[in-house]
Amino acid sequence: MIHTDMRNPTREGVLAAADSIGRILPPTPLLPVEIDGVNCHVKAESLQPVGAFKIRGGWWRLSNLTDEEKARGVVAVSSGNHAQGVAWAARRLGIRATIVMPRNAPKVKLEATRALGADIVLYERPGEDRDEVAAKLIEESGAVLVHAFGDPWVIEGQGSAGVEIEDQLGRSPSRLLACCGGGGLAAGLALACPEAAIHVVEPVGWDMVGQALEAGEVVRVGEDPPSTICDALQPDATKPINLSVLSDRAEPGVAVTDEEVRAAQRFAFAKLNLVVEPGGAAALAAALAGKVELDEDTVILITGGNTDAASFAATLAGA
Amino acid sequence: MIHTDMRNPTREGVLAAADSIGRILPPTPLLPVEIDGVNCHVKAESLQPVGAFKIRGGWWRLSNLTDEEKARGVVAVSSGNHAQGVAWAARRLGIRATIVMPRNAPKVKLEATRALGADIVLYERPGEDRDEVAAKLIEESGAVLVHAFGDPWVIEGQGSAGVEIEDQLGRSPSRLLACCGGGGLAAGLALACPEAAIHVVEPVGWDMVGQALEAGEVVRVGEDPPSTICDALQPDATKPINLSVLSDRAEPGVAVTDEEVRAAQRFAFAKLNLVVEPGGAAALAAALAGKVELDEDTVILITGGNTDAASFAATLAGA
Repeated sequence: MIHTDMRNPTREGVLAAADSIGRILPPTPLLPVEIDGVNCHVKAESLQPVGAFKIRGGWWRLSNLTDEEKARGVVAVSSGNHAQGVAWAARRLGIRATIVMPRNAPKVKLEATRALGADIVLYERPGEDRDEVAAKLIEESGAVLVHAFGDPWVIEGQGSAGVEIEDQLGRSPSRLLACCGGGGLAAGLALACPEAAIHVVEPVGWDMVGQALEAGEVVRVGEDPPSTICDALQPDATKPINLSVLSDRAEPGVAVTDEEVRAAQRFAFAKLNLVVEPGGAAALAAALAGKVELDEDTVILITGGNTDAASFAATLAGA
Repeated sequence: MIHTDMRNPTREGVLAAADSIGRILPPTPLLPVEIDGVNCHVKAESLQPVGAFKIRGGWWRLSNLTDEEKARGVVAVSSGNHAQGVAWAARRLGIRATIVMPRNAPKVKLEATRALGADIVLYERPGEDRDEVAAKLIEESGAVLVHAFGDPWVIEGQGSAGVEIEDQLGRSPSRLLACCGGGGLAAGLALACPEAAIHVVEPVGWDMVGQALEAGEVVRVGEDPPSTICDALQPDATKPINLSVLSDRAEPGVAVTDEEVRAAQRFAFAKLNLVVEPGGAAALAAALAGKVELDEDTVILITGGNTDAASFAATLAGA
């Protein structure tokens, strides 16, 4: 319903997004980390005001709406981080935001999105088709859909993280390891850092970008996918706009298990003093598990930190 | 034994320290935080490579040793964060470091100090006099003592955090809230930011700087002080060098309870995605408890994040 007549995201768009975002948000820190004797870097996007990189794409998409579109408001579909990114940008720009969220989204994400002033419409996951819920809302209100990853402005906005990384490192990173849901961040990074190898890291069974890269076309998740603790990394499929950027640029996809993700959360706690949510720790998990070769110009993105106290405490106790 | 013929720390020294430290360590982030409706800032020194601001003073002291002093090595007394700061600087400068640590220091701090290559000498707390242990080591080896707070270079090094804050904020902070042990950081901040009000925050019963400010002289902790979870903030007394800087500059001291500190750790987890140790959360605790008035140019220092998983999980569970 929405991906017709869509322009391609561009490197120029990423640079413009980085300029715009740099005026309202300080860069998140690039922290040194030693993994298996290699001194590389993590980019702590978990320290954004909404606790995830999604504030970038939300800001760039919403600030590029026309006045007429702004007046109609926006609709987003998200389990929580994109929700907060859109809600944050909408509040700052005075735009009405309605977010379609699964009833089983983490409570902290539901509450934080509500606290940012967005209207929330819940759906059942699994069961209801969230795209249908959103389509109905849009039909009723005329609001503009802000897709979580399949949108050129969203891709460009997320890519601004790569511009920051290159600026902080003082040169192009050799490799970027990105936690990956639908491929918005990874596509943006590919545009931002043309000299870097791009590694997408996804949960086992939810590696829809990795499978699409291998198949050369969009692949939908199976009927009965395995469970994952990475609530932020469960798209049904990537989109053509993401795949078209990544197919020429990304390395073969990497998949990580829940246990590898938990180990990465514990590592980030102990070595970096960072609270990282499961989906935000996937790229670090791949690095710690030796699934990607590292060097001193490698940057691992920690993409989100929004997790509740009980599950974080349980993860720490599992050490 | 050591505080004779000691020079005074200076603002010029703080600026020189900030320049030196800025060449080897990127600034820690200044993060926005909303407390009771006021948008102020936290300075996340818990994200330093050793997990605490102490890397600043350790680096500035050690890099100013003469070659002859460097050859003799250094001795430090610390429950863990100063230990790591000195050990980090010593490794980088090729200096031998011996750290006197209490046997009941947090295990994570003992292990991290050892991992940085320092020799560790344990003493019993309470029971043994740590200064005597250190004096004996110095007598035997000729090593140079690096005091945790009562040293002009250490004070200047810690003050570099204030220079960074002013640079990141684009103007002088109105108020700085500092977690306080012996007063090294607070004195450095007072020199760095002459226009800012300086608030020292200490654990109840261990408010040796607050008591000294009130008495106008150094006050020793009582025979039977209350317990505190802030293992990093338990000096027996401040030193004249710290008091001489702070007596003209600091506001009356603020004391916080263990429960206020735990609430601050939970707040930092939930709102900032930061792991903060008890002693590193004292200043935030004072702000959250309404013990210091806040405005939008207020900066709260989060001074350390080195805590073990079990006690952090217990703190989270206590929400």
